[in-house]
Amino acid sequence: HNSKLPHVGTTIFTVMSTLAQQHNALNLSQGFPNFKSDQKLIDLVTNAMNSGYNQYAPMAGNLELRVAITNKFEKLYNISYHPDSEITVTSGATQAIFTIISAFIKPEDEVLIFRPAYDCYEPAIALNGGKTISVQLEAPHYQVDWTAVAKKVNSKTKMMIINTPQNPSGTIFSEEDMLKLQDLLKGTDIILLSDEVYEHIIFDDKNHQSVCMFPDLKSRSFVVASFGKTFHNTGWKLGYCCAPKELMAEFQKVHQFNVFCVNHPMQKALADYLQDPNHYLQLSTFYQRKRDLFLSLIKDSRFKFTPAEGAYFQILDYSNITMENDVDFAKRLTIDHKIAAIPLSVFNTDNLDNKVLRFCFAKTDDTLKQAADILNSI
Amino acid sequence: HNSKLPHVGTTIFTVMSTLAQQHNALNLSQGFPNFKSDQKLIDLVTNAMNSGYNQYAPMAGNLELRVAITNKFEKLYNISYHPDSEITVTSGATQAIFTIISAFIKPEDEVLIFRPAYDCYEPAIALNGGKTISVQLEAPHYQVDWTAVAKKVNSKTKMMIINTPQNPSGTIFSEEDMLKLQDLLKGTDIILLSDEVYEHIIFDDKNHQSVCMFPDLKSRSFVVASFGKTFHNTGWKLGYCCAPKELMAEFQKVHQFNVFCVNHPMQKALADYLQDPNHYLQLSTFYQRKRDLFLSLIKDSRFKFTPAEGAYFQILDYSNITMENDVDFAKRLTIDHKIAAIPLSVFNTDNLDNKVLRFCFAKTDDTLKQAADILNSI
Ligand SMILES: CSCCC(=O)C(=O)O
Ligand SMILES: CSCCC(=O)C(=O)O
Repeated sequence: HNSKLPHVGTTIFTVMSTLAQQHNALNLSQGFPNFKSDQKLIDLVTNAMNSGYNQYAPMAGNLELRVAITNKFEKLYNISYHPDSEITVTSGATQAIFTIISAFIKPEDEVLIFRPAYDCYEPAIALNGGKTISVQLEAPHYQVDWTAVAKKVNSKTKMMIINTPQNPSGTIFSEEDMLKLQDLLKGTDIILLSDEVYEHIIFDDKNHQSVCMFPDLKSRSFVVASFGKTFHNTGWKLGYCCAPKELMAEFQKVHQFNVFCVNHPMQKALADYLQDPNHYLQLSTFYQRKRDLFLSLIKDSRFKFTPAEGAYFQILDYSNITMENDVDFAKRLTIDHKIAAIPLSVFNTDNLDNKVLRFCFAKTDDTLKQAADILNSI
Repeated sequence: HNSKLPHVGTTIFTVMSTLAQQHNALNLSQGFPNFKSDQKLIDLVTNAMNSGYNQYAPMAGNLELRVAITNKFEKLYNISYHPDSEITVTSGATQAIFTIISAFIKPEDEVLIFRPAYDCYEPAIALNGGKTISVQLEAPHYQVDWTAVAKKVNSKTKMMIINTPQNPSGTIFSEEDMLKLQDLLKGTDIILLSDEVYEHIIFDDKNHQSVCMFPDLKSRSFVVASFGKTFHNTGWKLGYCCAPKELMAEFQKVHQFNVFCVNHPMQKALADYLQDPNHYLQLSTFYQRKRDLFLSLIKDSRFKFTPAEGAYFQILDYSNITMENDVDFAKRLTIDHKIAAIPLSVFNTDNLDNKVLRFCFAKTDDTLKQAADILNSI
C-alpha cells in the first residue's frame, strides 16, 4: 500500500521521551508536568464517576462544561460564545486541530503556518491533500514580518494557523501583531486556526492576545484550548475549540464521526473545577516562578537565552558550546549528560538549524535544580 | 465555504436521544447502558489518578494495557498480536475507525460496506474522497449473499468493512461467512476493517468469529474493539485496534496527529481490570438474560421479531401496526408513547424502509419492563 504520509515518521516527542527513558535521563523534552495535578480536581473525577457520569456525553460536550467555558471567555475577554452552537469539547487540543483541518482543507488548498511550528499541523494538512506554506521565524526573537506574510497569501490560501504563546519558541503575539493580522486578512475568507493552548501562561505582566478579542478575527476563527496544559493533566486528553456557529457546524460534522464525544466524567469534573477562576488565573504566576528559578540557576552556564514570554518552554542557544547540529547534540545530551530536550530544526523549513534546544520547565523545583546542575557542567 | 460533507447532518443517535430527553421518553435508541459500571473498575481509575497516571500515555497506549489486550487474544482465540507494534489504544472504536479510513483511503478508492450500516463509516470515507459501495442486507435475516458481494469487488476496491455482531441488525457472521470472505479476498490486497465492538456479546452458545482467527484475513485486517461496550462505560471513550505491523505503522502516522494518545488513568485501570478474564467472559450470559427478559415480555405484543444473535440491540418489525415510514413512526413513538428507538432506514441504501426499529436492551430490568408495558399497549 502506498503511504498517504510517506514523509512522516515518529513524532520527535515520542523519539526524545523514549530515548530519555532508555538512558535514564531527566526528561525536559516532551511538554508535560512531572508534578501532581490538584487533588481537588482528581476527587471531582471520582465523584463524577460515582455519580454515574459514565455514558456518552452530548456530542458537543457536557453542557455544564460548555457553559463554564463560556463564562471563562466572558470573564477574561468580555466575549460571548454560545454554549449551544459555538463550543465543542475535544480529546485534547490535538484532536481539535486535526478535526478543524480535516473539516475544511481540500486538495490544492494552501495553509499558512509559522515556523518553528508544533508538529501536528503539517501532517494533517498533507493528509487532506493541502499544501503547507511556511513563514520562517528566526531565533532568538521569532518576530513576524507581516509584509513578508502578506506576500505568501493568495487566492488558494484557505487557512492560516497561528499559535500564541508559541510552542516551541516561547514568544507571544503583541496587540500590534494581531491588528496587522486583522488588516492582512480583511477582505479574504481565510479561516484562522488560533492555537492558544498556553493562553493562561504569560509572563512579565504581558497580556494574552486571543483572536476572540478582535471582532474581524473572531468571526473567521477557531480558538483552540487545552485543559491538559492548564490543569497539569496532559494524560486526560481534554481540550476544546470555539468558533462562530457556521464554522462550528462544519467542524461537528467531522467531530461526531471522529470521536463522537469525549470523556464524560472528566468533563463533569472540569465543569465543577472551572467554577473557581483562580484555578486558571494563578497559572502565569506559578510558571513564571519556575521559569525564573530555572533561568537564575543557569545564568552562568555556557547556554545563552532570551527569557520565554509565555508557555512552559525555554529556548537555550548552545552555540558557545559546539556547532554540532541540534538533533545530534540533543541525542548526545540525553545519552552522555542525562538530560533530554527538543531540537528545534525538526520544526523548521528545510530543517534550518539555529543551534537551539527547547527545555520544558513544567517540572518540580527539584528536577529544575538537577537540570541546571547538568547544564552548568557542560 | 463549501462543505466537504454537504450531505451529512446530525447523527441519528443525537437526534433520537435529544428527542427522547425533550419528551421525557424511555431512551432505547442510542446504544448505552443505563446501569452503573463495576465499582471495582471505577475505583481502579481513582487509584490510577492518585498514583500519578495523569500525564501523556505512550502514543500506542499504556504498555500494561497493550499486554493485557495481547493476553485476551491469546486466551480467546489462541492468536498473537505483538504489543509493541500491532496494538493501538484509541479514543473509542469510532476514533479507531475514522483513523483507519483516514490513513488508507484516497480519492477514487472504493470501500465496500454492508447495509444497514453503523453511520460513521460513510462520512469518513467521503471526507477522504473515497466512494462507498453498499451491499444491502434484507430484514429479517440480514444474510450475506457472497456471490453478490464478489460482483462489487474490483480493482478500485481498497477496503471492505465488516461488523460482527452487527449493529444495528443484531446478526452475526458464521464460520462459513468468514471462509467465503477469505476466499473472496484471496489474491487481492484489499484491507479489511473488522468492527468487532460487540465481540463479547454473543447468544445461544454461538461463537464470535473474529477475523484474527483466519490467517489469510488477519494478515490484511484491522480488528476494532471497544471497552465502552464491554465494560458498560461508553462515556469513557476507550477502545483499541490491532493489525499487522505494516498496517499499524500507517495507522499510527495518523493517530499520533489526530489524538496523539488517549486517557492515561483509565488505560491503567483497564489494564488492571483485564487481569480477570471473567470481566468479559460473563458478558454474553449477562446480556442474553436481558434479551430473553425483554422478548418474553413483548411476545404477545403486535411487534414481530427474530431474536438478536449478538450485540445489545433487538430489531422489532412493526408492520402489523402501521405502514407509516420508520422515521415518522420512531418520532411518534417517542413523542406520543414515550419510548425512543432507532429507525433503520437511515442506515440503508436509498433509505430502504423495512418497517423495523432498533431497540437497545442494555438497560435495567426495570426499564425493560416499562418499555415492554408501552410496546404491549401499542
Ligand atoms: C503530544 S506530545 C507533545 C507535547 C507538547 O505539547 C510539546 O512537547 O510541545
Ligand atoms: C456514538 S452514539 C451511538 C452508540 C451506538 O453504538 C449505537 O447506538 O449504535
